[in-house]
Amino acid sequence: MTKQIYRTRRTMRPASNTGEPTSGPLTAQELQLAARNHSMPLEALRRDITPPGLHYVLTHFDIPDTDAASWHLRISGAVERSLELSLAALKKDPAITVPVTLECAGNGRSLLRPRPLSQPWVLEAVGTAEWTGVPLAYLLAKAGVLSEAVEVVFTGADAGIQGGVRHRYARSLPIREAMRPDVVLAYRMNGSELPPQHGYPLRLVVPGWYGMTSVKWLQSIEVVTAPFKGYQQQVAYRYQDKADDAGTPVSRIRIRSLMVPPGIPDFFTRKRFLARGPVMLQGRAWSGAGAVSGVEVGIDGEWVPAHLEKPPGPFAWCKWTLPWVADPGEHELACRATDSTGASQPLEQNWNYQGLGNNMVQRVSVTVE
Amino acid sequence: MTKQIYRTRRTMRPASNTGEPTSGPLTAQELQLAARNHSMPLEALRRDITPPGLHYVLTHFDIPDTDAASWHLRISGAVERSLELSLAALKKDPAITVPVTLECAGNGRSLLRPRPLSQPWVLEAVGTAEWTGVPLAYLLAKAGVLSEAVEVVFTGADAGIQGGVRHRYARSLPIREAMRPDVVLAYRMNGSELPPQHGYPLRLVVPGWYGMTSVKWLQSIEVVTAPFKGYQQQVAYRYQDKADDAGTPVSRIRIRSLMVPPGIPDFFTRKRFLARGPVMLQGRAWSGAGAVSGVEVGIDGEWVPAHLEKPPGPFAWCKWTLPWVADPGEHELACRATDSTGASQPLEQNWNYQGLGNNMVQRVSVTVE
Repeated sequence: MTKQIYRTRRTMRPASNTGEPTSGPLTAQELQLAARNHSMPLEALRRDITPPGLHYVLTHFDIPDTDAASWHLRISGAVERSLELSLAALKKDPAITVPVTLECAGNGRSLLRPRPLSQPWVLEAVGTAEWTGVPLAYLLAKAGVLSEAVEVVFTGADAGIQGGVRHRYARSLPIREAMRPDVVLAYRMNGSELPPQHGYPLRLVVPGWYGMTSVKWLQSIEVVTAPFKGYQQQVAYRYQDKADDAGTPVSRIRIRSLMVPPGIPDFFTRKRFLARGPVMLQGRAWSGAGAVSGVEVGIDGEWVPAHLEKPPGPFAWCKWTLPWVADPGEHELACRATDSTGASQPLEQNWNYQGLGNNMVQRVSVTVE
Repeated sequence: MTKQIYRTRRTMRPASNTGEPTSGPLTAQELQLAARNHSMPLEALRRDITPPGLHYVLTHFDIPDTDAASWHLRISGAVERSLELSLAALKKDPAITVPVTLECAGNGRSLLRPRPLSQPWVLEAVGTAEWTGVPLAYLLAKAGVLSEAVEVVFTGADAGIQGGVRHRYARSLPIREAMRPDVVLAYRMNGSELPPQHGYPLRLVVPGWYGMTSVKWLQSIEVVTAPFKGYQQQVAYRYQDKADDAGTPVSRIRIRSLMVPPGIPDFFTRKRFLARGPVMLQGRAWSGAGAVSGVEVGIDGEWVPAHLEKPPGPFAWCKWTLPWVADPGEHELACRATDSTGASQPLEQNWNYQGLGNNMVQRVSVTVE
């Protein structure tokens, strides 16, 4: 297990974020989280690449205050030689740029019934950026991974308490995933310095996996010979039917599509109003399991195939469009994607105890005038 | 009145965002707004200048999709000569850079009892940036303001419905405020191109006034000879005791201070945990009415003066610090600022019907171990 600044121990307080899911109203705690953690406004789906300030952000604890001049990345554990690298040293290594769609595994949680108590995402915990940095595989090869290694543990500088356990945020990857050529230790986002909320000075980016894997504010990489048992791996981010079910770990992003809500909104209700006539419906679709093979748009319950554009990369979303002639009245629009594994978005919720991977189709009500 | 793309008219729908304040639970509509609109995480108070992705953002309608190449700013109305300026032309005019703290007038709304129904800010709808652009007074002088002018109306590209009224977002300023040398039409934020959510390609920035004044996605400036009666001026952003009270308009930012919550958080509750011993408490204070003259820090109800640093500009926040020796147990910390007009933050809520200007002192509970 990776080093932690605090002993891992139970506090006197209950594991408040793994409490019973509720059918009750939104709590003040959920509102606090919704205020801190940023969604991507759906109109940003118009863009191939999301600007950093519109990309979704989930920060479990606080954004750490890192001094890049004294910061070092330590690579240790089951390796032939440990490495300690400054940011300047990392920037001298060969760099790659990878366009990646990241989505929070908890996206859609607040729409579940009953509602698991955690960050209450609606639909917009997603974004796509171009991440530039050193391939992880290059550095692991430099350190020399020993044959008994099974996982690589990534630990951030962000510390706090979750579920009663004090820890620095840490997650692991199986060796075979860590050695993929497109897994990057990123110090640039969309061509600029990594912003504080996206992991400055360095973050891991794992294309195709839900965002919890892409550890921010990275401080150490430890190659381990037994599966990592940290809180964020063994307790959080698991598909469970109930609290005492060991569950299965969350990994790759499930197929999903979203639509730019057409027309103009009402400020408070966000209901959409649209002039009659032709309108180009558009959105994006993505999957961590394989390429998007199709998107269907639902118009008042009838499904019509949309036109797909080429994505900017194998793990970046693709744009879809569908021309529609809006006639006066109330309409319900929806979108539903399928990927190359044959997986499609469900029409009903994917309920689980922690509210993860809810890729149910989006529905948008519009009034055409 | 400035041009609008839609007729100003009542729709069939009620003025949903001016409904009765409630003592009930948070609604799905409020959660949708909390997801779209971004708070500044309080740990960002450590920085003099807030990066764009951490600065607060309130978008009434949708972020418009502006083509900067065809975009023009129109200056018209009670002027000697109307102007139509491209972005390239604006960038040739003399530029100034002004550090400004912007705060949403609705900051603190969700803490009010009963709770007005609108964007449910907690405490963090604030940020400070360096805005670069053309002084508004320079362009108004170029256009030649006629003597009968009373106000200047600023209209953005963002359109929607609020309180049953369709409009583009528009606000006015009295001529004397519009002619201040520090009011800027900004095309850069912190030295970089204006991000989409902060008003690309051009926004008005009015130092000292609540954020609703600093119109984003600016399209037109109209000098008018009678007070502007648009929705955002005459209905929204007014201090009212009740719904049918004409109220008084919201203008300058009320004195306020906030603290970086010390220690580490619990993920779900955001409660703070801290090791015993010395800790430097810190935060920022600001006022649109005058310089900050003092900050007191409350420690378990006892008020101690904090040390103030020089702010980066007359309308930018100033840092305060106070060393504290944390002893084991539960503590309540607070901070309370006073400005050069003698105004201090209230200890109890400033309730009003729309939930504006609630500058009640922040309280932070910490457990010292």
